[in-house]
Amino acid sequence: MDLDLNNKIISFVGSDEGKWNIISIKTICGDPLPVCKRVDIREGYDFPGGIKADWILKAFKSNLRYTTREEKTLLDKKSRALGQPEYDYAALIPIKKSDDWWLLTQDERREIFEEDSQHIKISSQYLTMISRQLHHSRDLGEAFDFITWFEFSSSHLSQFDELCNTLRKTKEWEYVIRETDIRVEKMQ
Amino acid sequence: MDLDLNNKIISFVGSDEGKWNIISIKTICGDPLPVCKRVDIREGYDFPGGIKADWILKAFKSNLRYTTREEKTLLDKKSRALGQPEYDYAALIPIKKSDDWWLLTQDERREIFEEDSQHIKISSQYLTMISRQLHHSRDLGEAFDFITWFEFSSSHLSQFDELCNTLRKTKEWEYVIRETDIRVEKMQ
Repeated sequence: MDLDLNNKIISFVGSDEGKWNIISIKTICGDPLPVCKRVDIREGYDFPGGIKADWILKAFKSNLRYTTREEKTLLDKKSRALGQPEYDYAALIPIKKSDDWWLLTQDERREIFEEDSQHIKISSQYLTMISRQLHHSRDLGEAFDFITWFEFSSSHLSQFDELCNTLRKTKEWEYVIRETDIRVEKMQ
Repeated sequence: MDLDLNNKIISFVGSDEGKWNIISIKTICGDPLPVCKRVDIREGYDFPGGIKADWILKAFKSNLRYTTREEKTLLDKKSRALGQPEYDYAALIPIKKSDDWWLLTQDERREIFEEDSQHIKISSQYLTMISRQLHHSRDLGEAFDFITWFEFSSSHLSQFDELCNTLRKTKEWEYVIRETDIRVEKMQ
């Protein structure tokens, strides 16, 4: 009957060790994360003997919160799984939204998220080049609300920057009060 | 940076001790919960020295997932806080929904939840008599998906039964694969 957190939670671990080499850690807004050399993605919540880390960001995958069936059909057609052989780059982007966002009702958040900011429509244009997985943190009492992991080929770096810049200009992003953009490359 | 689960998670503890005396534990569908004498509501996830319990159901409060602004305005007008002096009865109802439910998109779930099953509309008719708090469990990997705690006066027991019976006949409830209905009274 205990929480099976080790079966559900993923930990993004920033330290001197790990499979992804950090190229840059850029604070977009809010408090910065400590700088470190590597990122590792580990399944689980508890690690026997503990972990020596500069930071650990914990989160879970969940059901869809805004996507409609029509949008999902389109997204599924274009989406590619993480781990494609040509994916030598990745980005780890944790964000936190304001209380104002969380006090909105579902219809108000959806209106800002898609009808105004076109989060799904904009992102879907990049899905054949950029794979991603959203994770939720807020309900765990973590410092960030969402942690998205993106993977892509370094030949599509400019497209990834374009995607980030476009989303950051939307109305949805006016509710983002903390964001860090961590770029990594796969270790040989 | 560690999960502050003790700040966020509530544990419903079934054992021989606690502030609420169990009158009945009825399995509506799916696996039963072990029978015990009392329920206690404890804040937190980790308890120093552990807890001797027949079961522990862990969950968190979260943001609204389906409610529109119009509905929330109506609900807020009628809702009363838990802990009213006349509330001598309570019910703890954990439910689990099928994978079919969770594979639906947001618009499909909302359509079943409200436009078809009128979950909010039906429930709102009882809000002046029955107070409630929804908690989420699924994202913690728990056995149930939702745990709702209701409080009311024993003079409104028949209205509470009516509410439960009405909701259990809806299309939404066709997706409920495990449900236990635990009725309790406040210890003097």
